[in-house]
Amino acid sequence: MNDTKILKGNIIFTKNPKEFTVIKNGYVFIESGKVKKIDIKISQEYKDCTVIDYGNKLIIPGFVDLHFHAPQYANLGLGMDKQLLEWLEEYAFPEEAKFKDKEYATKIYKKVIKEIWRQGTTRIAVFGSIHKEATKILLDLFIKSGIGAFVGKVNMDRNSPDFLREESEQSIKDTEEIAAEYFNKSKLVKPIITPRFVPSCTSEVMKGIGDISRKYNIPVQSHLSENISEIEWVKELYPESLDYADVYNQFGLFGQQPTVMSHCIYSTDREMELMRTNGVIAVHCPNSNLNVATGIMPVRNFIEKGITVGLGSDISGGHKISIANVMNVSVQMSKVKWLQSNKKYTPLSTSEVFYMGTKGGGEFFGKVGSFEEGYEFDALIIDDSSLGEVNRDIEERLQRFIYIGDDRNIVARYVAGNKIDEPEL
Amino acid sequence: MNDTKILKGNIIFTKNPKEFTVIKNGYVFIESGKVKKIDIKISQEYKDCTVIDYGNKLIIPGFVDLHFHAPQYANLGLGMDKQLLEWLEEYAFPEEAKFKDKEYATKIYKKVIKEIWRQGTTRIAVFGSIHKEATKILLDLFIKSGIGAFVGKVNMDRNSPDFLREESEQSIKDTEEIAAEYFNKSKLVKPIITPRFVPSCTSEVMKGIGDISRKYNIPVQSHLSENISEIEWVKELYPESLDYADVYNQFGLFGQQPTVMSHCIYSTDREMELMRTNGVIAVHCPNSNLNVATGIMPVRNFIEKGITVGLGSDISGGHKISIANVMNVSVQMSKVKWLQSNKKYTPLSTSEVFYMGTKGGGEFFGKVGSFEEGYEFDALIIDDSSLGEVNRDIEERLQRFIYIGDDRNIVARYVAGNKIDEPEL
Repeated sequence: MNDTKILKGNIIFTKNPKEFTVIKNGYVFIESGKVKKIDIKISQEYKDCTVIDYGNKLIIPGFVDLHFHAPQYANLGLGMDKQLLEWLEEYAFPEEAKFKDKEYATKIYKKVIKEIWRQGTTRIAVFGSIHKEATKILLDLFIKSGIGAFVGKVNMDRNSPDFLREESEQSIKDTEEIAAEYFNKSKLVKPIITPRFVPSCTSEVMKGIGDISRKYNIPVQSHLSENISEIEWVKELYPESLDYADVYNQFGLFGQQPTVMSHCIYSTDREMELMRTNGVIAVHCPNSNLNVATGIMPVRNFIEKGITVGLGSDISGGHKISIANVMNVSVQMSKVKWLQSNKKYTPLSTSEVFYMGTKGGGEFFGKVGSFEEGYEFDALIIDDSSLGEVNRDIEERLQRFIYIGDDRNIVARYVAGNKIDEPEL
Repeated sequence: MNDTKILKGNIIFTKNPKEFTVIKNGYVFIESGKVKKIDIKISQEYKDCTVIDYGNKLIIPGFVDLHFHAPQYANLGLGMDKQLLEWLEEYAFPEEAKFKDKEYATKIYKKVIKEIWRQGTTRIAVFGSIHKEATKILLDLFIKSGIGAFVGKVNMDRNSPDFLREESEQSIKDTEEIAAEYFNKSKLVKPIITPRFVPSCTSEVMKGIGDISRKYNIPVQSHLSENISEIEWVKELYPESLDYADVYNQFGLFGQQPTVMSHCIYSTDREMELMRTNGVIAVHCPNSNLNVATGIMPVRNFIEKGITVGLGSDISGGHKISIANVMNVSVQMSKVKWLQSNKKYTPLSTSEVFYMGTKGGGEFFGKVGSFEEGYEFDALIIDDSSLGEVNRDIEERLQRFIYIGDDRNIVARYVAGNKIDEPEL
């Protein structure tokens, strides 16, 4: 009992997408980094435990970001007048190529992680670049930070610019080296198999990294059905495939290990059925979809089909690291979709987007993103006193933070039960 | 010459929507609050003038917000799961009714103005409430602040809740009292005629306030064609009218004096033609349109037809006071419109939305929103060193500020040549 950590405050989270669970002036009991229980009082047996009293502040689950290109960080907010391909060629690829240089990688990745911390993201799935050394630097820095992360060395051995293309064999070899070195090194930070997307990987590499995923039990992340011409391109490359998802699936990269697929704007019913069957998580990245003008994901359709949906900042196609901002834009876009679909797809509610950005995406990391018993205690402490009257419903205060708050309102961050301060990297 | 104020920095603004004018390490010369010229050096005749050196920072025109409901400020970020009518009934109207109380009005309006200042808005058109005293308080506080503002007492004498409805005669009388008292009191702060929208005003009031507008040369602001059922309602109330705009026009409230009309999502060709002919400015409020799920204004269509478009935060239907945020969301929404329209409406560029949020909207205030000769010097000094590498194109740095910056990056604000510090109200 003496090991138990107790936090007091206004506790709010989503067990399910339909509603918030709110415990005003409640206590959350944490044992070995996990939530033991939530209560409105401290019973006798816990009377000797330390209580950290956050007063009238909010205690919410930490944010989960399922899509982030770490080596694009220096481009944040740049190239926003470009469309996808132009933007890749002029902004994303040249910047990623710089990560051949370990010193540059170290400099930028330190900044990336500090900013992820600042914005309240406690778990993240990130793309690195094709560079083995830079990816290891990113893994090591995340380990040092205390943030939970899946970090992927990107595979690209075709249809990529000369300065950002690997030899197939080397691509597989480097991926395996990282897998072997990191699959069991840290509890919170792990490698992830990361083909950039189907067109940038030969079948040889797809097969090779599929094998590595299986061999080391390593999850998978990639892009899926982001825009029409990309889907046509995949069809040209694999004319016998049933659809885009089918290609990943053939190589054991579609749910054979836990898998997240970003965008899914133009997914077919069959593709979605395969996602559901294989337990693949769809990642909604509305800011990026808007900035590079690819479209709006029909999130409601995915939810109705029983597919788990998480949120992604998709830095730097997306410009905002804050998952609170991604939640708010997700609601806004769902309203556009509602109008577009002749009111077929009901708008997403605040609890639904909050669920996606915490427990929904958290599923990818295990029992993460909720304060139910047994969940790892990832949390943010929100001081919203600068945002208006605090004598209001806790739900309203949370919504207000999501819409108008920012990093200044996040006064403490916990990952797996540990308070993590600004990382000294 | 000795009265001339000179500012040095990276000067960027939009003479026209198509492109930025950039003077790297330039000087802006200000005489009697107005821009005299911009140069890359200080000639002999100015050698004794004071130079304020902003180093590598950006000097940009101040932001212009053409639509803002000041008495809804306390609702910022609340009620965002509601649609327009629900939201009005549950959030907007009950809050506005509180402004019968002068003490409450004083408390909230002080906060509103400080926040407007903080977010870099230097000129604003605001709706008050129906209350004469509260509106005078708002006018007086704006005068004290140094921010340029048109402030309107709202007229509502029908189809409004009992607690927020005026008697027709009183509504006209109160409007005239404010007009007479304030039309010539301040150079920067003026009254504006503000029928809430057609359904909330009887013909008697519409005629009365149209007369006041003409008598005192006072501009007009209102809502236009925000959603389909509203338009149908107007048609029921005025079955003989040609369209929504025609009703305002009949009463001399549509460009007879300078006029801004917010939303214009579903404007017909005839309505738009009338706007062009009468010089009515359309106000794009994308955040609000998304939050209350009304639709996306076809801004490109307005621009092509030669109608001036400005931007509005539409607090608190919109949740962000920052016009930089409204610019960024305007670009995003124009991309949705581009996709929706089968690529008919080209997306808005950064320079186009910047123009709308400075010189476009600034037109309503005279020569405002640009650094061309004779323009009143309204400016923001932007320190973007926290946003990434500053050794980049000035245009890119401005875009980055628009996408990922916030009030922390605004280090000084000027209105009509005067530096204005945080208002002490």
